[in-house]
Amino acid sequence: MTLLLQEIRHNKLLWLLLFVPIMFVAAHLRPTAHTLLFVLSVLAIVPLAALLSHATESVAAKTGDAVGGLLNATLGNLTELVIALTALKAGQYMLVKASIAGAIVTNTLFMLGMSMLLGGLKYHVQEYNRISARMQAGLLFLATVALLVPSAVAQADSAETTRFMQQLSLGLSVLLVIAYALGMLFSLKTHREEFASTAHGNEAEDKPWPLQLALLTLGVVTLLVALVSEVFVESVQHAAESFGMTPAFVGFIVVALVGAAAEMASAFAGARKNRLDLSIGIALGSASQIALFVAPVLVLLSYLIGPTPMSLQFWPGAVVMMLIATLTASLVTNNGRSAWFVGVLVLMVYLIFALTLYLLPPRVL
Amino acid sequence: MTLLLQEIRHNKLLWLLLFVPIMFVAAHLRPTAHTLLFVLSVLAIVPLAALLSHATESVAAKTGDAVGGLLNATLGNLTELVIALTALKAGQYMLVKASIAGAIVTNTLFMLGMSMLLGGLKYHVQEYNRISARMQAGLLFLATVALLVPSAVAQADSAETTRFMQQLSLGLSVLLVIAYALGMLFSLKTHREEFASTAHGNEAEDKPWPLQLALLTLGVVTLLVALVSEVFVESVQHAAESFGMTPAFVGFIVVALVGAAAEMASAFAGARKNRLDLSIGIALGSASQIALFVAPVLVLLSYLIGPTPMSLQFWPGAVVMMLIATLTASLVTNNGRSAWFVGVLVLMVYLIFALTLYLLPPRVL
Amino acid sequence: MTLLLQEIRHNKLLWLLLFVPIMFVAAHLRPTAHTLLFVLSVLAIVPLAALLSHATESVAAKTGDAVGGLLNATLGNLTELVIALTALKAGQYMLVKASIAGAIVTNTLFMLGMSMLLGGLKYHVQEYNRISARMQAGLLFLATVALLVPSAVAQADSAETTRFMQQLSLGLSVLLVIAYALGMLFSLKTHREEFASTAHGNEAEDKPWPLQLALLTLGVVTLLVALVSEVFVESVQHAAESFGMTPAFVGFIVVALVGAAAEMASAFAGARKNRLDLSIGIALGSASQIALFVAPVLVLLSYLIGPTPMSLQFWPGAVVMMLIATLTASLVTNNGRSAWFVGVLVLMVYLIFALTLYLLPPRVL
Repeated sequence: MTLLLQEIRHNKLLWLLLFVPIMFVAAHLRPTAHTLLFVLSVLAIVPLAALLSHATESVAAKTGDAVGGLLNATLGNLTELVIALTALKAGQYMLVKASIAGAIVTNTLFMLGMSMLLGGLKYHVQEYNRISARMQAGLLFLATVALLVPSAVAQADSAETTRFMQQLSLGLSVLLVIAYALGMLFSLKTHREEFASTAHGNEAEDKPWPLQLALLTLGVVTLLVALVSEVFVESVQHAAESFGMTPAFVGFIVVALVGAAAEMASAFAGARKNRLDLSIGIALGSASQIALFVAPVLVLLSYLIGPTPMSLQFWPGAVVMMLIATLTASLVTNNGRSAWFVGVLVLMVYLIFALTLYLLPPRVL
Repeated sequence: MTLLLQEIRHNKLLWLLLFVPIMFVAAHLRPTAHTLLFVLSVLAIVPLAALLSHATESVAAKTGDAVGGLLNATLGNLTELVIALTALKAGQYMLVKASIAGAIVTNTLFMLGMSMLLGGLKYHVQEYNRISARMQAGLLFLATVALLVPSAVAQADSAETTRFMQQLSLGLSVLLVIAYALGMLFSLKTHREEFASTAHGNEAEDKPWPLQLALLTLGVVTLLVALVSEVFVESVQHAAESFGMTPAFVGFIVVALVGAAAEMASAFAGARKNRLDLSIGIALGSASQIALFVAPVLVLLSYLIGPTPMSLQFWPGAVVMMLIATLTASLVTNNGRSAWFVGVLVLMVYLIFALTLYLLPPRVL
Repeated sequence: MTLLLQEIRHNKLLWLLLFVPIMFVAAHLRPTAHTLLFVLSVLAIVPLAALLSHATESVAAKTGDAVGGLLNATLGNLTELVIALTALKAGQYMLVKASIAGAIVTNTLFMLGMSMLLGGLKYHVQEYNRISARMQAGLLFLATVALLVPSAVAQADSAETTRFMQQLSLGLSVLLVIAYALGMLFSLKTHREEFASTAHGNEAEDKPWPLQLALLTLGVVTLLVALVSEVFVESVQHAAESFGMTPAFVGFIVVALVGAAAEMASAFAGARKNRLDLSIGIALGSASQIALFVAPVLVLLSYLIGPTPMSLQFWPGAVVMMLIATLTASLVTNNGRSAWFVGVLVLMVYLIFALTLYLLPPRVL
């Protein structure tokens, strides 16, 4: 506890934690002040994300980067899962799919690119474990194929498509979850040694917390993030309209960026400490986890809590963007070295997508 | 001859050879018992495949893995060629094309993935000659482009398309055959040394046959495979229907799996002996050979023996699957190392395709 | 000056320089003899290209291959820029886009493939700096994505598309130019040492010119190339028709091949001297420069000198070809070694495209 307070004194960013109670009070008193709640919820998520980042790093320091990255991705994606579940219950399948696709693209391109850029601005060339990066990119490619094939095949025929698409989505969901579980077995058990990090620089600056405190903080903060996220989801659509954003842009970019804030804090911190392995593990691991775990789980849960079963068929533009994001990640991470310009290239692809969605006429998504 | 009998006594699988005469008798006595003939023909192909495998390995032991792999691919693909020629004569161009596309996808994904998985379950990490794998993947990419462009360009216009598509298919066929011949010149002649295998483990367990016996066996068994295949082709459509399979699934998956049984036995045996070079050479070499040699030869032969010229325009879903299979092979084979999970990833892509085709409503292919 | 004359005496090709004044006289006396002017302008461009090649090599000898390659690309692409500007003024946006797409595909596939083939016929295996090649391929991939997204997204909707497409094209153009500038900063300034060439063989055969003479020659010859190109543009459409070529083939292949003649001479000469770094730098650098610099500049200039703003939306077939060309370049250049067959594979992809365009019924482009 003393350590936690020390950390808060030490890190000015954590003073923003004050916005957590403020937001809850505001949400209670003024539930329709959407723009205010939107701003407050973003301000509240940022320090929680920072706490989560430090707690995860403390755990990662004791378990190795790959496991830490996986742990981080699992916890960070709770936010996305909560958002999607809320929308699922309401039957807003378009929003669920947009936030899935957006989370994959944002994690793959924005988080990866920004990590490489931030790391590259500090270090001339950064090296990382390409075997780990490759497995993540491979998993992501597999998931993208699973999300691509239904759309590619469905175009040919549209009569019996609905039933076919539901059966196919169910089958694909099971395959994806199996692949995800086998991937965990591979990276955490049978080939653990391959995922060890390459050597990295000074790490002494932040003292890691004891494991118990770290785990406790992880639990409590994750819960808070989930609660704050719900207010965020309710307010974001209204706030976005008053800022003049299209629904496509909100689902793909805004929700995804805020939803991944926690992981981004960790990924960027890792890159600045020359631990690009951690950053890449978080970025690609998080994207894979959404594609291989969150998406199929949502399909399966839609049979229980949704009004009708949800399929894995996406808007064609979203499929193209996911495929290009995956290809970019594969091309960029297959040589184990990075410099600032690589980050710029990846970010540019993201900017192209963001610009396209920002300008896209409504009712296309 | 004594050696051959020794081999049969030694290897229990070869007792299945008994089914070869049984099948011929059954085909003569009960030509309409399709389900029975289907089962018998599969049972007869398996031991022939095993014999072929051992004979090819004996030759490969004297010529190096790359040449052995090429030899194996050439002989193994005779099955596919016989199947396709039978369908071509009958003008069933949809079936010819489905079996071409299916053979490419099955060899690239199922044979490669299963080799990597089987090898990976026995050896922690397997290394292979990536230069050879890359050339095969490059050839395959080229062939896929050739099969992709007609479909991509044709969508824009459909009036004068037929004549255009025929001329284009003829021209592409000539280009593909030239590329195939140059590739052989490259790997067998000018840059032979690049295709030497990386070191591999114990090979002493199976004594290679003398070259003469091996070559004789290759010839006789190949002929038997061809004869059995014909019965298989006749019975497969009927049998599939009684098992509740769609035509798309039969053409793509069942015909391709049985047609490639001979090569699979060799590829899997290679992987279990830590000679992944041989396996990859067979899998990708076989896929390339179908794309670069079998497909254009069928187009050219359709002018001689078919009712009308056959084009290289495929069902869009098949093009997407071929392209993804090729990309998967490229991504997976470009680092010269494999472990069991890499095989799982490749097999998962195959399962996604198989599931899609299995569920696909009929009359789409 | 003496050196220049020596060079002309030494190199028989330069006697073709006589065709430069001949062409100008012919263009003045017989402005409608299109076939004659077409032949004369091609004959005049070839020796100018050779001079440009030698001058650029002289500069490259003093600045390192990467900078030399960039310089060469910049100057060589003036031809394409002049052609496109002429067509832009006349509002022939289809021709502008065809020549942009054609230049990207031709530089990426024909120039790269032919360099690898010519180099590979002389040297058994050629090594090159894969970091430099990878950055070029990465830039090219980025640019292709920028050109691909508008077409992919636009298909979904077509009502408000025109306004959307214009805004998007403007935004993408700005992003591309920024990426290009940052890429120059990276390769010429912050990470210059990464772009140093790998060791190469004998270079003594051609004595480099002094820097002043080289720069002067570069300037004057570039101007002449621009003037000759204008005659070429005017005559090529008419001449093509009399040779029976489709407009698609002319825009994509003929204009692109002649427009890039200058750079090709340099690239092929580099490959024959075992300096494949220079060749790859020219080929991919030139393609990147067209995609990242020439194309967006043309969009921006269309607001000033064109009748209406030009968009970045391409004919779908052209997008597919650019994407495949980029993927081919990525796959082929990511291992730092080349042999003749790699060149054959790349050229085959180009031939597939050329054949398709040659046979394509008119009015599709």
